[in-house]
Amino acid sequence: MINFEFHNPTKVFFGKGETDRIGKEIKKYGKKVLLTYGGKSIKQNGLYDRVMKRLQENDLQVFELGGIQPNPRITSVRQGVEICKKEKIDIILAVGGGSVLDASKIMGIGVYYDGDPWDFMIKKVKSERMHPLATIITLAATGSEMNHNAVITNDETEEKLGLEDPSTFPTFSILDPENTMTVPRDQTVNGIADILAHVFEQYFNPTKEAPLQDRMAESIIQTVVETTPLLLKNLHDYDARATIMWCGTMALNHLIGSGVDGDWSTHGIQHELSAIYDIPHGAGLAIIFPQWMKYVLDLIPEKFAQFGERVWNIPRNGKSDSELGLAAIERTKNWFQGIGAPVSLKEVGIGSDRLEEMAAKAVSRGPLGSVKKLNKEDVLAIYKMSL
Amino acid sequence: MINFEFHNPTKVFFGKGETDRIGKEIKKYGKKVLLTYGGKSIKQNGLYDRVMKRLQENDLQVFELGGIQPNPRITSVRQGVEICKKEKIDIILAVGGGSVLDASKIMGIGVYYDGDPWDFMIKKVKSERMHPLATIITLAATGSEMNHNAVITNDETEEKLGLEDPSTFPTFSILDPENTMTVPRDQTVNGIADILAHVFEQYFNPTKEAPLQDRMAESIIQTVVETTPLLLKNLHDYDARATIMWCGTMALNHLIGSGVDGDWSTHGIQHELSAIYDIPHGAGLAIIFPQWMKYVLDLIPEKFAQFGERVWNIPRNGKSDSELGLAAIERTKNWFQGIGAPVSLKEVGIGSDRLEEMAAKAVSRGPLGSVKKLNKEDVLAIYKMSL
Repeated sequence: MINFEFHNPTKVFFGKGETDRIGKEIKKYGKKVLLTYGGKSIKQNGLYDRVMKRLQENDLQVFELGGIQPNPRITSVRQGVEICKKEKIDIILAVGGGSVLDASKIMGIGVYYDGDPWDFMIKKVKSERMHPLATIITLAATGSEMNHNAVITNDETEEKLGLEDPSTFPTFSILDPENTMTVPRDQTVNGIADILAHVFEQYFNPTKEAPLQDRMAESIIQTVVETTPLLLKNLHDYDARATIMWCGTMALNHLIGSGVDGDWSTHGIQHELSAIYDIPHGAGLAIIFPQWMKYVLDLIPEKFAQFGERVWNIPRNGKSDSELGLAAIERTKNWFQGIGAPVSLKEVGIGSDRLEEMAAKAVSRGPLGSVKKLNKEDVLAIYKMSL
Repeated sequence: MINFEFHNPTKVFFGKGETDRIGKEIKKYGKKVLLTYGGKSIKQNGLYDRVMKRLQENDLQVFELGGIQPNPRITSVRQGVEICKKEKIDIILAVGGGSVLDASKIMGIGVYYDGDPWDFMIKKVKSERMHPLATIITLAATGSEMNHNAVITNDETEEKLGLEDPSTFPTFSILDPENTMTVPRDQTVNGIADILAHVFEQYFNPTKEAPLQDRMAESIIQTVVETTPLLLKNLHDYDARATIMWCGTMALNHLIGSGVDGDWSTHGIQHELSAIYDIPHGAGLAIIFPQWMKYVLDLIPEKFAQFGERVWNIPRNGKSDSELGLAAIERTKNWFQGIGAPVSLKEVGIGSDRLEEMAAKAVSRGPLGSVKKLNKEDVLAIYKMSL
């Protein structure tokens, strides 16, 4: 295990009906709320009305910023910051998936900065505090509801960048599985791919002697693998929605990554796909991950073998670590395919024409990863394997 | 899964050498520190000097309260509160095991109360805030370093009572595995029994549909079961100490208990043993737990069967859930025995003379448990099975 600091101050309210406490909780932070959200779904499924009703009952003054897109744009962040400053907003309430939450986090730190909030993403400045932020998630995927991460896209520069900043933990988050009941099958699948990718990125690391972290990561993977078929059979299965939601939060609230040197290169490699082609984040991850795994298999074969034995119950039967690991990677890819996730770039309409450019961009701020430091050539090789 | 609220604001610094940051961190909270500790061990192993050096380097004014006993007494708490009030202490620094930490938590809330701090334990009053509290743990066991629990003994009334209070999370805790290197074998074993008992108490619950919580609890149990033999072979094995330490924290920081209705009756049953006979908490738990398991086996046989299959790798081979569960309970008891923990009251010199009295006391504030509500007769039966 390596030394670590762990501090996660987000308060979580989890379960059926918890949405209704939003007005009372928000009120503790002031009168003026900026409600941020994405497209039409929360208006169609009634969540918008339900939240508004609770806010109004508590005499809160609500300002709105809708239309935050998947792969959220820095332009939305800039708009939010402007409203917060102009209207002297007391608390931001983000209702939506990771995109809405991520954009709202950067708005929250942007409130205390005079320059362009994109400066945070390119690490030109460092934030010290965030405006109070409440969240109600509507999709199990990014873990944004209980972590200090955000990913923002800049259309002008065709960049999609991630920020990890301890000041960006939401103040509190409501995780009400009923709010994910109407998420369509494809988005549900993309969310699940994202959750698994987060666990993989912390689990496949070069750190020795972190057996509890290993087993906890495996717990999440196994639970997702067992629960997903139940959920896809019935998208309105409350228990399955609840389990996947809690898996999503636990997958990326910094706990299983504490004490290990995670390898986040796959996210970096995927971000370039989303930045240029605007494919869903989870879809890109399902495509890239098995190929990254193959690419680094022989650097930590014992870890891939452990993954095969513990998660996929593949018997050893005289196989070497590499052979067992390779079988586990195949199982992972097949499993993604089985739940309807894409596993090749071709399936999402991406050809070979811009691979070089994306590979260069992926490493423009330095090589990626910890299991293997990936340079442009490595990233390009992984893109080609993914075709 | 049942609805839950999760909020754990304790900041953790984990790893080798983290002890040395104590002066710098303490300084953020003021000038006057009350250093609380137990017996001679921290003076013998150099930790006392090391901490004092760091505090003095940072110009902190240190007051001391040593001599806090295992099964900490309310008398120590009263002394601490008095010092805090009289000297206008800014922050309490607890250096020791769970006893020192628990006593310091109640001191921390006692600072804001004019009456006797025992009132918190008997739930006559409810605390709203705690004085800043830093901890450096010297024993992996109670999880007190990252939870809101405390257990205090009152010699006058022969009571040992637990309190769960959200205001009592330590402000920050230093988890430096090197500080546990000199813990003798028997205390190491008692700590491990305590850790496993905490997991059992959350794992063996009547809640359905909490598969992630189940697997995470199993992760901790499996890791403890695998790591303990390595540690007992070499009590100075840093990696094993680090793993057991992190297992101890994760076993009782409210995470694996979120969303399930844990059954804490064994702790209640055990507390009466410690209150009257002053046996180590972990020893009492190792004795009582297998008997409680047998007593409730047939109420949740499927859970005990799952425990047997996943944790102990007992093959099904046509066994019923109850049969498999019973085999798992036997394995648990044998495992405790194998690491040198007592598994009967006789081994710790306790006979049958005061069982009735203890059983009556254990349920004096109402029946115990969630898997089965235990009345006096049930508790007495479990004591008798434990003879």
